[in-house]
Amino acid sequence: MDVNEFREFGRAAVDFVADYLENIRDKDVLPSVHPGYLHKLLPEVMPEQPENWREVMQDMQKFIVPGITHWQSPNFHAYFPTACSYPAVIGELLSSGFGIVGFNWLCSPACTELEVIVMDWLGKLLNLPEEFLNCHDGPGGGVIQGSASDSILIAVLAAREQSVRRVGEESPEMTESDIRGRLVAYSSDQSNSAVEKAGILAAMPMRLLSTDAKCALRGDTLRKAIEEDLAIGNIPSVCIATLGTTGTCAFDDIEEIGKVCKEYNVWLHIDAAYAGAAFCCPEYHHLMKGVELAESFNFNAHKWMMVNFDCCAMWLKNADLLVQAFNVDRIYLQHRFQGQSKAPDYRHWQISLGRRFRALKLWITLRTVGAEGIRKNIRHHINLAQHFAALITADGRFEVIGEPSMGLVCFRLRGECSATQKLLDKITERKRIFMIHGNIHGKLVIRFAICGMDPQVKDIDFAFQEIQSAITDINFVPNEISDKIHDRFSKEITFLSSEERLQ
Amino acid sequence: MDVNEFREFGRAAVDFVADYLENIRDKDVLPSVHPGYLHKLLPEVMPEQPENWREVMQDMQKFIVPGITHWQSPNFHAYFPTACSYPAVIGELLSSGFGIVGFNWLCSPACTELEVIVMDWLGKLLNLPEEFLNCHDGPGGGVIQGSASDSILIAVLAAREQSVRRVGEESPEMTESDIRGRLVAYSSDQSNSAVEKAGILAAMPMRLLSTDAKCALRGDTLRKAIEEDLAIGNIPSVCIATLGTTGTCAFDDIEEIGKVCKEYNVWLHIDAAYAGAAFCCPEYHHLMKGVELAESFNFNAHKWMMVNFDCCAMWLKNADLLVQAFNVDRIYLQHRFQGQSKAPDYRHWQISLGRRFRALKLWITLRTVGAEGIRKNIRHHINLAQHFAALITADGRFEVIGEPSMGLVCFRLRGECSATQKLLDKITERKRIFMIHGNIHGKLVIRFAICGMDPQVKDIDFAFQEIQSAITDINFVPNEISDKIHDRFSKEITFLSSEERLQ
Repeated sequence: MDVNEFREFGRAAVDFVADYLENIRDKDVLPSVHPGYLHKLLPEVMPEQPENWREVMQDMQKFIVPGITHWQSPNFHAYFPTACSYPAVIGELLSSGFGIVGFNWLCSPACTELEVIVMDWLGKLLNLPEEFLNCHDGPGGGVIQGSASDSILIAVLAAREQSVRRVGEESPEMTESDIRGRLVAYSSDQSNSAVEKAGILAAMPMRLLSTDAKCALRGDTLRKAIEEDLAIGNIPSVCIATLGTTGTCAFDDIEEIGKVCKEYNVWLHIDAAYAGAAFCCPEYHHLMKGVELAESFNFNAHKWMMVNFDCCAMWLKNADLLVQAFNVDRIYLQHRFQGQSKAPDYRHWQISLGRRFRALKLWITLRTVGAEGIRKNIRHHINLAQHFAALITADGRFEVIGEPSMGLVCFRLRGECSATQKLLDKITERKRIFMIHGNIHGKLVIRFAICGMDPQVKDIDFAFQEIQSAITDINFVPNEISDKIHDRFSKEITFLSSEERLQ
Repeated sequence: MDVNEFREFGRAAVDFVADYLENIRDKDVLPSVHPGYLHKLLPEVMPEQPENWREVMQDMQKFIVPGITHWQSPNFHAYFPTACSYPAVIGELLSSGFGIVGFNWLCSPACTELEVIVMDWLGKLLNLPEEFLNCHDGPGGGVIQGSASDSILIAVLAAREQSVRRVGEESPEMTESDIRGRLVAYSSDQSNSAVEKAGILAAMPMRLLSTDAKCALRGDTLRKAIEEDLAIGNIPSVCIATLGTTGTCAFDDIEEIGKVCKEYNVWLHIDAAYAGAAFCCPEYHHLMKGVELAESFNFNAHKWMMVNFDCCAMWLKNADLLVQAFNVDRIYLQHRFQGQSKAPDYRHWQISLGRRFRALKLWITLRTVGAEGIRKNIRHHINLAQHFAALITADGRFEVIGEPSMGLVCFRLRGECSATQKLLDKITERKRIFMIHGNIHGKLVIRFAICGMDPQVKDIDFAFQEIQSAITDINFVPNEISDKIHDRFSKEITFLSSEERLQ
């Protein structure tokens, strides 16, 4: 492909993306294909000779688009949002055009330095404590990771190595493998699966502690668990707290937890993957009270801050601990300027050696949207969630479980869980909106998250109509007995399973 | 930014990339900036109000481009190539336009299925054993990882968990932490830093074994190390062999190593990050003789197969072992079709939960280039390396160390290492070509790798002239004594350090 074909292909691709995103409401959010559909449509071996890009684009329209789940549709309400914005898409394009790999400063000074700068922009936007920022005198700083999973694993690994070093110094009679075998990590039973997985990958038991009525981890629960472990000779190493859990967008009590962590020398990492973006609005700062007690913090700009996946922002109060844990120096990686503070060798801050120029899309997005635009988007999503909750609440057949939190509403049909399951199955089968289920202390709920690139009030109304219409399809009859039982508890969140409630 | 602005911005960005790549020879390959340069040019906080994209593009030209190290320039000869091609750049653009996250099949069936299909295309192109392919009946299959570092770490972690399970069953008297404390991993002292790092992250000692005169790890060396470990009660778990080492592009003897691994129940992973691409040419198949003995294999399509970073292809003979090691199921991640063989939930095959639609750029590139185009590109790079080696050899002041291997030539000035170091420093200072140093058994060498998007014979000639010109700059005078000593050894590679040679 020569440069002229690239210009043509590029323009066609830009127009494809524009048309796709502009008309995304025209398509069912869920595709109508069955597993293996594509295997019947594509050849088993690649072509020997080059094919024209026009053919490939046609095949993409014909074969790929029908198998896409439209995450950028406003009718997508599953999981949490994955960001997409016009400036970020172009940021990705420009970044691939440069085709650089920024594992150290010399590999492209602009790649490292722009990251240092925009991570400070972001940290200031969220009102993070100064110690986390690159511009602060201390050893703290921010870095872009690929995902919250990566950030959590990195925090767990850094904490693990720090514990091994510390205990090794304090108790020289213990062997390293004995120390490693006694390390324990903590999180809540509401934390993301990535936390449990980080425990497995780091070979450290991850105790998933129970949460309070609001699904939040509390300081006393953590203290009790730590004391139990200390009593049997275990070594508490790290705690992963969550601001905005995946199930219900609950907020752990960071201040309580942080104090306990300080007391017992436990590394506190905060996973604010989704909700962290909301801290750009002063009215939500109270939800991260105690953040200064954490050693590390991550949120996904690619969830709720208009920057395409992947762009997970992670800050550390002492990045030296990471570098100590991960540093593997080789002659071919050395360069004249290494070790300078404004130009970190980011390869020591992450798992992989290579890294894309992700700061570019973040920079372009932050500048073309502006801080006010970012805040407006957050508030707009929260308003839409409130609007949906009002619609649901006004319809007596439903109950909202807990309070709507950020852009997430958890609801269910009053009565048996099976009716809610049936409703969700029917909605999924109809493919017009996409939601997933959750489980709040034994109660099946439907999670309704505000997602997509440009959700509007009309889209929320559409979703509500679709839900009502699906109820008709399943011939739902409200169960009066369970309704009455429900009403007794409706002002406090009950968290009993449906079986228990009927006893 | 509305959709019309996106169309304008998009076209401008496509033209920027086209102009940048077309005229890349006009720029020095290394930038003329010092650490912290960008901090002086950009504001300390992000703008409150949105800025026009045209301003951002102007700033990118003014502030970012001068800080870029031009990896796609044909004058870049450092590290190994990082691929960039017109179709792959557009693949990235389209993939961000879809804005999907494909962690399971339902999240976008096309994302998972296209990956299954193109990984089979690639596996067949490289002539990998059938057991590695998704289309084979067995539990094997291919997956796109972000980097070789990721693939190596994943292999090490999967091997570790398998060893723990196996030894736990065989020796129920051992505790899990005792087993974990005795596990050992092996690789060669020539393997990439990512291998050593994987050992640190997995908390498993990584023994870096010595290599033969050709810098290759041999079966007997591995056997001896394993026997030593067994004798002191350690548990050999995994060996990472390299096809195309970073230092000299050496090839470990996979067949010898594989047999030893089978004998001692050790997981063999092959890291063919750079050289793996060459196996699309039948004339290089002999270099991977014994590959069928490996449990897993990775190569970077983003190094030498025209697909932009990140695109590391990894295959496993038994992907179930990975899923067993990494699986963390949550209610919100379940869907109706899970577990079907043509539609793997790839989140269990990797560290992160989220994943980009990377199969799209791979598919578009493979189709628009074709198998013949891929092979032609590989052979072209190898021919250019041969051309460079001939130029170097014809100039009596230099010696080529070892044979040129694939697209890499290692050379040095005859005599003291300090002269070679001085030469490299001067060349780096001049910024017209970029190479890095290596160390072959104590001897300082300059690595000359064929890189960039479109390297031509004229670029190699330019590099050679630039090297000659830099020699003049440093006032190099060949050292006759060391020359004579050199000549005695020039037909066999000596690997003595310069100090030793002069004794």
